Parts: sequence; C-alpha cells; structure tokens
Amino acid sequence: MTPETSGYKEAGVDLAAAEETMRRIEGAVASTYTPQVLRGLGAFGGLFALPAGYSEPVLVASTDGVGTKTVVAAALGRHALIGSDLVNHCVNDILVQGATPLFFLDYVAASRLEPAVVAEVVTGVADACRVAGMALLGGETAEMPGVYLPGQLDVAGTIVGVVERSAVVDGSGVRAGDVLLAFESGGLQTNGFSLARHLLAGRYAEPLAGDERGRTVGEALLAPHLSFLPAVRPLLGAGLVKAMAHVTGGGLPGNLPRSLPPGLGAEVALGSWPVPAVFTELVRAGRLPEGEAFAALNMGVGFVLVVAEGDVAEVRERVGPVAGAPARLHAIGRVREGAGVALIGA
Amino acid sequence: MTPETSGYKEAGVDLAAAEETMRRIEGAVASTYTPQVLRGLGAFGGLFALPAGYSEPVLVASTDGVGTKTVVAAALGRHALIGSDLVNHCVNDILVQGATPLFFLDYVAASRLEPAVVAEVVTGVADACRVAGMALLGGETAEMPGVYLPGQLDVAGTIVGVVERSAVVDGSGVRAGDVLLAFESGGLQTNGFSLARHLLAGRYAEPLAGDERGRTVGEALLAPHLSFLPAVRPLLGAGLVKAMAHVTGGGLPGNLPRSLPPGLGAEVALGSWPVPAVFTELVRAGRLPEGEAFAALNMGVGFVLVVAEGDVAEVRERVGPVAGAPARLHAIGRVREGAGVALIGA
Repeated sequence: MTPETSGYKEAGVDLAAAEETMRRIEGAVASTYTPQVLRGLGAFGGLFALPAGYSEPVLVASTDGVGTKTVVAAALGRHALIGSDLVNHCVNDILVQGATPLFFLDYVAASRLEPAVVAEVVTGVADACRVAGMALLGGETAEMPGVYLPGQLDVAGTIVGVVERSAVVDGSGVRAGDVLLAFESGGLQTNGFSLARHLLAGRYAEPLAGDERGRTVGEALLAPHLSFLPAVRPLLGAGLVKAMAHVTGGGLPGNLPRSLPPGLGAEVALGSWPVPAVFTELVRAGRLPEGEAFAALNMGVGFVLVVAEGDVAEVRERVGPVAGAPARLHAIGRVREGAGVALIGA
Repeated sequence: MTPETSGYKEAGVDLAAAEETMRRIEGAVASTYTPQVLRGLGAFGGLFALPAGYSEPVLVASTDGVGTKTVVAAALGRHALIGSDLVNHCVNDILVQGATPLFFLDYVAASRLEPAVVAEVVTGVADACRVAGMALLGGETAEMPGVYLPGQLDVAGTIVGVVERSAVVDGSGVRAGDVLLAFESGGLQTNGFSLARHLLAGRYAEPLAGDERGRTVGEALLAPHLSFLPAVRPLLGAGLVKAMAHVTGGGLPGNLPRSLPPGLGAEVALGSWPVPAVFTELVRAGRLPEGEAFAALNMGVGFVLVVAEGDVAEVRERVGPVAGAPARLHAIGRVREGAGVALIGA
C-alpha cells in the first residue's frame, strides 16, 4: 500500500486508514514472534525455521473461517473474540492429529476496513496465537468495495503445525468398547450461526432463559471457541489418546466418525453432559427435531477423546486445563461396531 | 456439512449444493497430491511430510487474495483464471526469498456458493498448484448470507514453501550498480482492480485501444497473474540472483525497496520495457499523474531480479520460461545509493 493515490481514494479505498490499521496491529503481531521467526529477511513471505529435533516432521495445516459469527459480533460491536475464536478453531483442528501449532496467517476482508475493527480482530488473533505458543507469521487485509455488504467483514485464517510422523494420532488403535470422553464447548463455537441468526435475530439483547451465567442471547451466542490444546497437551506422547474429534459443523454425527477407523461407529448417551441453555433455546425457537439439532450443532460437546477403558482414570488425572480452569470431562458414550453415531435416549 | 438440516435450508444455506461442490472439486484436488501428502490419516487437517534433505529447513508462508479482480471475473463469467491468479501470486511471493512451494490451502466464500462457480475457481487453483508442483492440501468454502453481496465472492489462499536456511535470498549481497532485470507482467496481475473498476466499469466489452492482442478491456483486465517460478528456478542455487521483488500493490516504488538492504534504492528508466495497453488506458481514463500510476500499478513489470552486472549474460542464458514461452527480460535500471525508487524519464 502506498500513501498517496487519489485514484484509489476515488475508488473508495482509504489508504490512510489501511496504514493506520497496520500501525495498530504491528505491536500485537510482533508480540507473538517465537525465536523461530526469522525477521529482517524480507517482507513478501514470513520465514519460520522449523524447530530442530524432529526426525520425520509432518506438517499439519488447516484453513478455516468463523462463518457468520462475524455478523453477530458486528451487531454487538464485539470483534475481539472473533479473532481468538478463529485461532482456537484452527488449533483444535490440527490438535486432532496430535500436532503442535507453529504459525498462523490471518485474512480480514470488508467493503471498507475500519482500523479500530481490524485492530480489534487482529489483536484477538495475536492474543490467542500467543497463548498457543504460535507466531502470527503473516496475514492479509483486503478492502473489497462491491463484494461485501457495508458494515460486514469476513475473517479467515490458516494454521500450520508439526507432529513427528510416528506420533500422528490417526485412530488406528481404536477398538469397539473404547470410551468417548468429551470436553464441554460452552456454546456454538463457530458453527451454526446462519441457523442461529435465522432463529434468534432481533433477540440478542434478551436474557437467555435458563442460562446459569445470566447472559443475554447475544452474549451466549458469542461465547468463545475454546482451545483444547492446554488440556490435551499433557496426554500426547503418553499414548493415552487413540483418536480425537473436534466437533464443528455437522455436530457429533458429522465429526466423530471422521476420527474412527472404517467399520467402527459410536453410541452417545443423551443426558451424559450438560447441554448449554443456548442450544435449548435454538431447539425451542426452531422446533428442531433432536436428530437435526445434533446434526447441525455441537450441543455442548466441543472436543472428544477416544480412550481405552483402562486408561480413563489416568486421562482424567493428567488432563490439563481448559481456558485456565480445570477441564470437565464427561464420559458420553463408547465406540461400537458399525457405522455412524447412534444417539441413545436419556 | 451434513445432508439434512432443514433449519439450515430455512436459513438460506443450501447443503445439497455444498455437497455437489465437494463432489466436483474432489478430483481436481486429488490431482495435485504429491507423494508428501499423507492420505487417510484423518480429515481435520491436511498432513504433509516435509521432504528429506534439508539440514536447516525454513518454512516460508504467505496469505493473499485476488482483491476485486473477482468482481471483473464475475461480470464476465470467467472464474477459472481467478484460481490460478491466486496461486501464482502466492508462488511469486515466496519465490522472492528463494522458496520452493510445498502446499496450498484455499478459501472461497460467498453469500451463496454456486457449485459451478466454486468448482471453476478451485479447479483453477488445483491446475496452478499442479504446475507449481505443489499439493492443494486443504481449503474451506463458506456460505455467508448477510456478509457478501449477491453474486460476488471472495477468493483467498495460503502458500507454504521451504528453503534451506543458507539459501534464503535476502538481498544482503546487493550493491550499488547491480542491474534490475524485469519480467513482463502482461497486465494488472491481481492489484489495482478497485481503481480499474472505478475507471473502466461499463467498458469491459469495448475493444482495448492499442492492444496488440486485440482483446477487449475486460479480457485485458483478466490477463492471468503469471508464475515466475519456472523462469527463476534454474537461477536459484547458482548464486546468480541477489534479490527479487514481486511487483504487487504499490507498484515498483512500493515493492522494490522491500528487497534492498537499508541505504540502497534504485533508479528505473521509463521506456526500457513495454507498457501494456491496459495501463495506458487506465492512465488516460483516470488522468493519472505518472508518479501516481507507478505507485498504484505494476505498469507492465511483474517481477524483478537484482543481479551483478557481470552475471547478466549468464542469467539471460539460464533463465527458464514464463507461461511456457521464452522469458523476456528487460534491463530496467540499477541499484543506487539512497532510498526509494527514482523514475528516470524516457
């Protein structure tokens, strides 16, 4: 970007604002730099020295967005959480294969980039990167008049992590009878927002019925997408976890089978974990049949570990914290012969 | 995504279309898989075994989009080029540091994803990845009603490449007097489209005055963003190239200095390379002063090599092809003491 191009200004692209944005995010980005980031070697791509000590390093990468959670964030003027939502979503996606985060790149686009909003988003991204021990190595902000609706923005990102080839968690050891241990999601994470907006739009400021934390509907919808890395890290390498699933779009039925070997499915016992009030409200507002709600939403389960029955006690003992608090793990079912996920009535 | 969630359908998200899209792109994606891609090890993140033989591997990563070139592509119904534009832009960005592409992840988002359009974009991405010898390791498509304008879409992507630490091209050997050798861009590449749309909208079907290839304005605007990897690859490792610059947003004055050590700038001789007709037309339509045009647009220079004068002949001999044709390299100027880029009249 260059400071003075009146042609661009006529075209609706505000370069001064873009430069102000850059100034605001510079410090946040630099705060994530690990010793692996090679600075001063050029500005076209970010340079990252692969940490030593891997004999057969496997890179694990994933791109994701936060979907239309951005619309709810925009409606409530709270964009910082969107950044950490995005990072944590990606951290969990590669955690499933046992990978440690190395670096992240973000992408923020809008019809017109408001420096304060972009800075809030990117600061959220940087904060979550720092917590994950990962560098925010690069990113792109794009002003795209004529593509985005005024006041809306899109936020996407790419994570790259690493795992020793022999330590890839691939589900191959999973057997019928293994136990499903679930971490609570605390909310929608970053999926189901088109549905949620359809059913709950206009009610964001209302108190959420039955919410034990006394939040409004909007606050509960914006509940952060949690990182399960600090919880799972102490379990990796110990051979205690046979498979993992991050419960995103498609819910338990859409995500759990992706982690299981062919020929194995799961049964999940309804009532074996607390379903947050925001899901109860969505089911009520949409008159959603149970199967449909579970196929679209995580219903309170954020991440699942598949563990041999004999290892459950040790996993409970070794598991790390979630968002700084002791993890609450729920035994929600078992692996069984067959395919798919059967929901067993409470 | 799951097949049956009527709640989502009410919310305007068409899951059947999303599944059709997935079916269409599956083959294109698989066609890019190199032996490093570890298949069947899980579906949350893509797994890529780092090639052996690097003693200190440095990963080079970059995220970029194609900006509002998508709007012109949508207006002309030609989305396939957008995919290769995106990939080639990213390939060039990491080439600047001497990196070889490893893998790519794409992100395609719209208010409503039309399977045919997404398939066209992703097939273009996959084609360009295959040409670059890089795997399309993952990606995300997002339907975001309420964020994007109807009929528009955004296309972004992330590249990860690798370079041996001792082979990073970092510009440290650049000296005053070194020669700037320029590859032709052939057009706007993927920058300047908000300006171009502002100045040329409604004229896409007109013949472009002075265009030696007889194209319309729209066709010339959509000229592909070329990959300079095949041209530069034979030069890497031979120590012939001291620095490189990919001429993107900000033109020569915005990009060339990023590749030069502190205290060095460049002088560029106007008239030393052919300026494509599309730039002449933009300058005329916008009555753009020369400095402003050069600060916003690449003006026909796609990529620059900084080479010792004594190596120019060997570089010309060894250089590989651009888009399958012999590269046309133009000596456009020299490195000099000072800062910034001085444009010297023709």
